Amino acid sequence: MNVLLASTSTLFGGNYLDYLTEEIKDLYKGIDEILFIPFARPSGISHDDYTAKAAEFFAKFNIKVRGLHEFELMPEAINEAKGYFTGGGNTFLLVKTLHEENLMHFLKDNVESGKPYLGTSAGSNIGGLNMKTTNDMPIVYPPSFDCMGLVPFNLNPHYLDPDINLKHNGETRETRIKEFLTQNETKVVGLREGNWIRRVGEKITVEGENSTRIFEKDKEPYEIEPGTVLV
Amino acid sequence: MNVLLASTSTLFGGNYLDYLTEEIKDLYKGIDEILFIPFARPSGISHDDYTAKAAEFFAKFNIKVRGLHEFELMPEAINEAKGYFTGGGNTFLLVKTLHEENLMHFLKDNVESGKPYLGTSAGSNIGGLNMKTTNDMPIVYPPSFDCMGLVPFNLNPHYLDPDINLKHNGETRETRIKEFLTQNETKVVGLREGNWIRRVGEKITVEGENSTRIFEKDKEPYEIEPGTVLV
Repeated sequence: MNVLLASTSTLFGGNYLDYLTEEIKDLYKGIDEILFIPFARPSGISHDDYTAKAAEFFAKFNIKVRGLHEFELMPEAINEAKGYFTGGGNTFLLVKTLHEENLMHFLKDNVESGKPYLGTSAGSNIGGLNMKTTNDMPIVYPPSFDCMGLVPFNLNPHYLDPDINLKHNGETRETRIKEFLTQNETKVVGLREGNWIRRVGEKITVEGENSTRIFEKDKEPYEIEPGTVLV
Repeated sequence: MNVLLASTSTLFGGNYLDYLTEEIKDLYKGIDEILFIPFARPSGISHDDYTAKAAEFFAKFNIKVRGLHEFELMPEAINEAKGYFTGGGNTFLLVKTLHEENLMHFLKDNVESGKPYLGTSAGSNIGGLNMKTTNDMPIVYPPSFDCMGLVPFNLNPHYLDPDINLKHNGETRETRIKEFLTQNETKVVGLREGNWIRRVGEKITVEGENSTRIFEKDKEPYEIEPGTVLV
């Protein structure tokens, strides 16, 4: 497999996908067209507008972008594509659409056959086993929380350390993930902004500038450094 | 109806339910025993421990607390109770349990018949039309997101204003609720900590120290002052 799952598309103060430029060139080496999956619709943006945003970035590298929503026969479009990019937004909306249109397993099968896959945020969540560790609001009801399992664990993108100055009793990210582990056995990778997961063949590493926080059942959470092999 | 839906059980630096003492006395006037619904299990606390925590608070007012989980026949326990309190925690876990045990509509029917209901956080979410505006992590998959509709809108407890100093690209609460409104028509009450919704008969007001932020489809969000009639 050839997979890149990023915590975020955009660093604070940065431009869309800029910090991932070298990684993305490596991921899509030799490919001149990718299929964009716009269904997460951040802030309710239209499928066309979201695809245009991705296309603008990839035009710099002479990679053409088509939106999956443009095709009448979406399973065929997935089977015929050379590579994939799923953008961020609302994970519930993304997963609902992929399941209702019966597309999740077509995407999974093609990525498992070796075609490159890039996800950011919600697009990274669907690379995990299921979406039960997303931060997103459940604005729609998906027929299932199951995802592709391109990696054998779950992700928590935009992982954020507790703010000790915040006078607020809403749960921290760490509290939420620990609650998940009271109900599930699945390992969770708390992926801080600027970090990503890279899978090449069987080897899965965590990359980026910051350390990454790992949550496992019946263990204290711990930190791993960039470059650490996850599986 | 006689309903109190609070944003949080505990103010920052305060003790459990303390700030709501006068309101709670008024809500349960003349009642000496209530049924506690512990299924949201904050931080994975056991049903027994959670019930004991609630019982400790209510002992001060000579109100006895029984946990719903203690009963073999839970629908009957709901029908025979004099009043209800649903504690906070994880809304997905709470809603999944209530639906799977077929309890949601028993609770709804009894509260609609006039028995007092107190909810905090997740327990307030289930007083809304559905749980699609919760902040909680989807750690389990409920068979439905539908809730009791004790009020004709949705709640967002622990509503938090955007932190302009945070160098982080995760979505703000406001962005998430606006995404909800791209997919739904339901009004959302952004209930800051320290505020609550009070329903007495047909009259629904928002109460507490702070203003409350209201989100409606195709409108700019707006603020209402404590005491404002919502419906």
